[in-house]
Amino acid sequence: MTSARTAQTARRPGRPGYDLDSLLSVAVKVFNDKGYDATSMETLAKRLGIAKSAIYHHVSGKGELLELALSRALNGLLAATTEEQATTGRSIDRLEYFVRRSVQILITDLPYVTLLLRVRGNTPAEKRALARRREFDAFVAGLVEAAAAEGDLAPDIDPALVSRLIWGMVNSIVEWYRPRGDNTADQIADAVVAIVFQGLRHPSPDAS
Amino acid sequence: MTSARTAQTARRPGRPGYDLDSLLSVAVKVFNDKGYDATSMETLAKRLGIAKSAIYHHVSGKGELLELALSRALNGLLAATTEEQATTGRSIDRLEYFVRRSVQILITDLPYVTLLLRVRGNTPAEKRALARRREFDAFVAGLVEAAAAEGDLAPDIDPALVSRLIWGMVNSIVEWYRPRGDNTADQIADAVVAIVFQGLRHPSPDAS
Repeated sequence: MTSARTAQTARRPGRPGYDLDSLLSVAVKVFNDKGYDATSMETLAKRLGIAKSAIYHHVSGKGELLELALSRALNGLLAATTEEQATTGRSIDRLEYFVRRSVQILITDLPYVTLLLRVRGNTPAEKRALARRREFDAFVAGLVEAAAAEGDLAPDIDPALVSRLIWGMVNSIVEWYRPRGDNTADQIADAVVAIVFQGLRHPSPDAS
Repeated sequence: MTSARTAQTARRPGRPGYDLDSLLSVAVKVFNDKGYDATSMETLAKRLGIAKSAIYHHVSGKGELLELALSRALNGLLAATTEEQATTGRSIDRLEYFVRRSVQILITDLPYVTLLLRVRGNTPAEKRALARRREFDAFVAGLVEAAAAEGDLAPDIDPALVSRLIWGMVNSIVEWYRPRGDNTADQIADAVVAIVFQGLRHPSPDAS
């Protein structure tokens, strides 16, 4: 849906400087700053420096902007569940790959994923997003269970807590990550994967 | 300050059923549900089923309730930095002990720590709380650096990212933990410590 819209918009630009993508990127910033519920079309128009009618040229209202933004975050994350390294090989390796990809996608689409993580299900668009998040959660839960069944998960860890705790760490990156900061997406993904899969303690207890 | 207040209140109770502690516990719940800024003394009085004057009997206003609530969370966390196992022995062991204690305190004082984690520094009480959180952060950063210097930290992990990522995982527990749920505080603390210090992968890479 996003890409079809984008193509359409490219053929009928609104005011110079705003196609649907750039409009969406400003709207997501405002939603994250003020909260979606507290953001009116009036607020968006003011922040964009255009008339409300120029926004309606692109979308039916702020609900559609929310839907497009949440879809962008979810499309990226769900696409990763079908990548080759997420679907072949031992489950623990797939899980590791998928944790890495989640960090990379979170950072690439930072404002969109931030918005997604704040969704509480107050509107139809939010309810649809939560349903798609559950697909993501089910994929991860399946990998963790399979890794445990394959004997690759440390035996003293409750599998039911694993995905909550890993994604607690992954999602917390939205709280402090700043583009052009000290670390690249790959460096942060490396650190997350190293802590979660090999552990902080060196040499590892099994080797000592 | 909290304990002095509590003792004082015990001598002059407000309406039956509300001493300062129980009043504070309801106020924190309302702050977490509605947001501190959006909560008026009117709202608090209504939720408590008492007159505003009965609240003023205990505190000077909602700012003092916020201060008391944040102090409770911070006092618990900062007290743990001075415990014997957090201050003696190898730094990696101290860090592990302190991660475990942080999870336990977060769960014991769940609503208070939840409120603390949402503080953005908008009021003097919030600014003081953020300053005390920085003491906590400095303590943790010191432990991580010392553990790295002692050769106990896996060499491929950037120490500067370690505390952010660990406490990202720890603090995320407030998002899903429910008292009387499936896991005790100790089970969750065990899982966090096992993942962070030994890693998820079994057998560990050094041993295989």
